[in-house]
Amino acid sequence: MYNKVTPEIIGLLASIVGPANIIYNDHEKMESYSHDEIFEFGYSSMPEVVIKPESADEISLIMKLANEKMIPVTPRGAGSGLSGGAVPLFGGFLLSLERMNKILEIDKGNLMVVVEPGVITNDINLALQSEGLFYAGYPLSLQNCFIGGNVAENAGGARAVKYGVTGRYVCGLEVVLPTGEIINLGGKRLKDVTGYDLLNLLVGSEGTLGIFTKVILRALPLPASSVLLLIPFKDIETPVKTAPLVMMETGIIPAAIELMDRKSIEMSSRLLKEKVPCQDEAESYLLLEIDGSSEQVEQDYNAVADHFLKYGALDVFVANTPSTRERFWSIRRGVSDALKVFYPGNIAEDLVVPTTAIPALIDEVNRLSIEFNLESNSFGHLGDGNIHVHLLPNKEMPQDEWEKATSSLLKKLYQTSQQLGGTLSGEHGIGHKRKNYMPFFMGETEIALMKRIKAAFDPNNILNPGKIFD
Amino acid sequence: MYNKVTPEIIGLLASIVGPANIIYNDHEKMESYSHDEIFEFGYSSMPEVVIKPESADEISLIMKLANEKMIPVTPRGAGSGLSGGAVPLFGGFLLSLERMNKILEIDKGNLMVVVEPGVITNDINLALQSEGLFYAGYPLSLQNCFIGGNVAENAGGARAVKYGVTGRYVCGLEVVLPTGEIINLGGKRLKDVTGYDLLNLLVGSEGTLGIFTKVILRALPLPASSVLLLIPFKDIETPVKTAPLVMMETGIIPAAIELMDRKSIEMSSRLLKEKVPCQDEAESYLLLEIDGSSEQVEQDYNAVADHFLKYGALDVFVANTPSTRERFWSIRRGVSDALKVFYPGNIAEDLVVPTTAIPALIDEVNRLSIEFNLESNSFGHLGDGNIHVHLLPNKEMPQDEWEKATSSLLKKLYQTSQQLGGTLSGEHGIGHKRKNYMPFFMGETEIALMKRIKAAFDPNNILNPGKIFD
Repeated sequence: MYNKVTPEIIGLLASIVGPANIIYNDHEKMESYSHDEIFEFGYSSMPEVVIKPESADEISLIMKLANEKMIPVTPRGAGSGLSGGAVPLFGGFLLSLERMNKILEIDKGNLMVVVEPGVITNDINLALQSEGLFYAGYPLSLQNCFIGGNVAENAGGARAVKYGVTGRYVCGLEVVLPTGEIINLGGKRLKDVTGYDLLNLLVGSEGTLGIFTKVILRALPLPASSVLLLIPFKDIETPVKTAPLVMMETGIIPAAIELMDRKSIEMSSRLLKEKVPCQDEAESYLLLEIDGSSEQVEQDYNAVADHFLKYGALDVFVANTPSTRERFWSIRRGVSDALKVFYPGNIAEDLVVPTTAIPALIDEVNRLSIEFNLESNSFGHLGDGNIHVHLLPNKEMPQDEWEKATSSLLKKLYQTSQQLGGTLSGEHGIGHKRKNYMPFFMGETEIALMKRIKAAFDPNNILNPGKIFD
Repeated sequence: MYNKVTPEIIGLLASIVGPANIIYNDHEKMESYSHDEIFEFGYSSMPEVVIKPESADEISLIMKLANEKMIPVTPRGAGSGLSGGAVPLFGGFLLSLERMNKILEIDKGNLMVVVEPGVITNDINLALQSEGLFYAGYPLSLQNCFIGGNVAENAGGARAVKYGVTGRYVCGLEVVLPTGEIINLGGKRLKDVTGYDLLNLLVGSEGTLGIFTKVILRALPLPASSVLLLIPFKDIETPVKTAPLVMMETGIIPAAIELMDRKSIEMSSRLLKEKVPCQDEAESYLLLEIDGSSEQVEQDYNAVADHFLKYGALDVFVANTPSTRERFWSIRRGVSDALKVFYPGNIAEDLVVPTTAIPALIDEVNRLSIEFNLESNSFGHLGDGNIHVHLLPNKEMPQDEWEKATSSLLKKLYQTSQQLGGTLSGEHGIGHKRKNYMPFFMGETEIALMKRIKAAFDPNNILNPGKIFD
């Protein structure tokens, strides 16, 4: 159904972006564009050519060419995704946005920042910081990921409990449509009900409805103060049950409420070669961030600490300097890194349920792990009801047994999530990794609607085919 | 293209909802369903039959019948809209959600509330209040409007500066599609990236893509304290220029920043028969709400008061009891009521621009008013860049002259808004009132995309036809 990339087509591409911005016939250089950061094996696919455009106009020409020649196009940010969204399943054009990496404008008056899609998310915050501003929607992979990918996946925020995720901050997009037209959605505006909300439809569309070439983000005044609490517990039930109560009982909305189980802490501290306080007694930890004015933060963190001590926390460790805050966050971020290093081939899930259903979800994870004789760990965004469950490979288990066990376990886990009012992915997206599980959570009607929307944008199914659904 | 409602069809409808829940052949009773609250003349249209279903199942049957018989269906909430969204342009079925008015569940654990679409928005907050919660997305018409209509229009919030608008709080929807299927989108979840964001596409779709039969809203802990500041100025330039600076210069994000010009205050105080402080000297007023913990609010409102006094405010009046807060808010809400009473037939605009462009927009409104010899007033959500400009009828101007002048003025005003980076509607929606002006702000490509999305949901164009676009 798709055509192959010919030398003639390479010549046309070279005339659009310049020969230096094309990788072709070079397996070694193209290899890193064949996968994202899925920990499991078997989710990579080689592109036929890697193209590095630097403008919406160039991308528009590439899309017109792709439609004419029937070549699939896969847009790619930093390749830090966890669902295969940036993997060129059908070969074709791999469109890397890496050269579109400029922060175009910081508009202090309107509290907006305008960026290209290939800017590393953390660089936005570094640039805003000196202006007394910050971008609140960033995910925990902020040091590697691109903002364009964050928008495409509607990436989850490290501070989502209070601030929400990426989509809340996207006020405008310049988009190249699959058919090559360039459109502008939204702008430096806080409200807009002029027609259907195409902007939010594009956010989280996983590179299947359009390619972002400019992003307008809302910035907020940087809070004067921020404190991070690391709270160990002698079990995992206590934090899981009492964290959702903190907002109701104290009236305080923390910026982040993160959970790490014993296994998660162990692997992170092993990777970072450091001892985490209370590590001998603790079965789990919460990491809570509280921000606001200095006096307010002081008051709030004392109230939050009291809340958890009342419910049996072993201790409360307070990080109120940038270096200790960074140390505590690095322990949390270290879990993901440690999984890559110590458990290659692990299976990463991204379930989200109503926050009160988290205890039942974690119970079921533990029960299923015993039933299928598999190791697992659980950590993540407890405050959002979004827990990352990882199934950890055991070298002694034969590959076919591992595949059978994990496949059966996941089906049961998805069933539980569905019954608890949860869904398949909170922030990593569907891509091609999870598309076969969509029917667990969604009826035929919804999936058929999504397919019709895809066709409304992309009649030739040329942009990132094989993602979200077949 | 559409068929007429026959007695046979009335019989079928009666068998679905019961004869008592149908209004037919009764002009007087149907008249109130023929218009919304557009102040101008000429936007009403009579339904052929009014139907009052009480469940998603009933609505599903009605939609299937409508498709079979090719009868247009217009869903209607409280009829408090300002764009003609609920007006049955082509006659047919008027589907009133007034009987679906139950608050189904307050889920304190998950901070969620589940309601039917016909609940008056303020009733949600009254019910939540006793649980120590509130729903932050409500618009200023909260005492009359239905939550279903708020979701359909993505209504603007009275506290949108800090809390955002309706859509931010919609976590789940039960929807009857135009073709009659019942689907559930989202749930009691804070994050969800499972497939395209149909939920947010439905929000603000103006009753053209589906009929909401259940709404799951996120609730927040009620702030311990809230203060309202009424701040008079000797001109309008000062508040308009210095209000956008308040967040950057003080680091405080007020819940609301509302503007009223002299004309607005005059008509409101005349309607309410009360004197507003400083009314003799003031050319404009700001109304600012600040909420949070008691100590924080005290600190913050002093900082905000100092900010505006520094920039030349005449005085700062503080409302920190429920009754004075309600009095100040009633002055603001009174502007809309006074416009209806004193200026029937006035033309209401709902422009939104980047906040720093508000001074230029207001200058242009004043300039154009003089050029076309028309009276106007400006007020509204200054903090969101969303200003309501009203053109006020003058009894001495002949109708044709009024129509010609207002039409020319509006075209120039839209051009200015577009040049300033603004758009057509911030919160009232397009409906049939503004659909002809869409091309001022949007290209053919975007409008064609929206039409294809409409067709993906509603192949027979049966649900609320003639709204947003033709």
